[in-house]
Amino acid sequence: MKILGIDPGLKKTGWGLISVKENNISFIASGTIKTNEKQPLHKRIVDIHQGLIKVTELYKPNQAAIEETFINSNPISSLKLGHARGVAMLSLSLSKNIEIFEYSATAVKKAITGFGRADKNQIATMIKYLLPNSDSKTEDESDALAIAICHNNHKIYR
Amino acid sequence: MKILGIDPGLKKTGWGLISVKENNISFIASGTIKTNEKQPLHKRIVDIHQGLIKVTELYKPNQAAIEETFINSNPISSLKLGHARGVAMLSLSLSKNIEIFEYSATAVKKAITGFGRADKNQIATMIKYLLPNSDSKTEDESDALAIAICHNNHKIYR
Repeated sequence: MKILGIDPGLKKTGWGLISVKENNISFIASGTIKTNEKQPLHKRIVDIHQGLIKVTELYKPNQAAIEETFINSNPISSLKLGHARGVAMLSLSLSKNIEIFEYSATAVKKAITGFGRADKNQIATMIKYLLPNSDSKTEDESDALAIAICHNNHKIYR
Repeated sequence: MKILGIDPGLKKTGWGLISVKENNISFIASGTIKTNEKQPLHKRIVDIHQGLIKVTELYKPNQAAIEETFINSNPISSLKLGHARGVAMLSLSLSKNIEIFEYSATAVKKAITGFGRADKNQIATMIKYLLPNSDSKTEDESDALAIAICHNNHKIYR
């Protein structure tokens, strides 16, 4: 079973893939899809889409987990994030064999650190501990791996 | 030349297609893509995507115009609208022969009524006048046709 976690964003969309065998998880790959702020919006979302399609075609995950978005108090930021998140969800949905699940940011933090208000550094530290072979280079990748692990925990324990 | 106007929304996405020959515009078709609120978000955005892909495959528009989103003061509404708008733009972008343009709500209203703060009734009334053959049944369709006309006006006069 391969689980793909997605941390969507218009500037940077993090993705992280883990393998689950019995109750053991291991790191497969992670990456960040960056878009060029100088490009028009409709080109940037195509870059997110194409990046995610490449990932799903290459690694063929069985399930995907995406964070239920943090509602920013700024409507403009929320709108931009909505574009990225909608496109990410659509890209995964178009890969017909992938089931999609959503988790709140609090659920993700709690799954990884036991604490719903953990900061990004704490998440990154725990990811290195839980997935010692991971080489996630950015917070977006650590967050994406955290979302994948959160999904796996919910499957095992629910 | 065929211009497709899009008024994106998560519940309802209006679309309207006009034909332009020399400086004359005429109505081709319009419709509303509705999504089921009881479905999970990732299924609703697939419905928007599939609906727009059907429209572009059937009518093969040359250009598309989409409203630059009205920034709602509510971040949750903005986020939802962002999902719909991102998916609509991606769906059009994936139809490779369609050029995409964006206009502010004020520009659209001004193009149709001469007044940047016109209400939806005024838009609908002007659409019936400008496109006498149109049978747009909803405000979303009238708005979508208004966006298409706005794009055409900008092309002629700029």
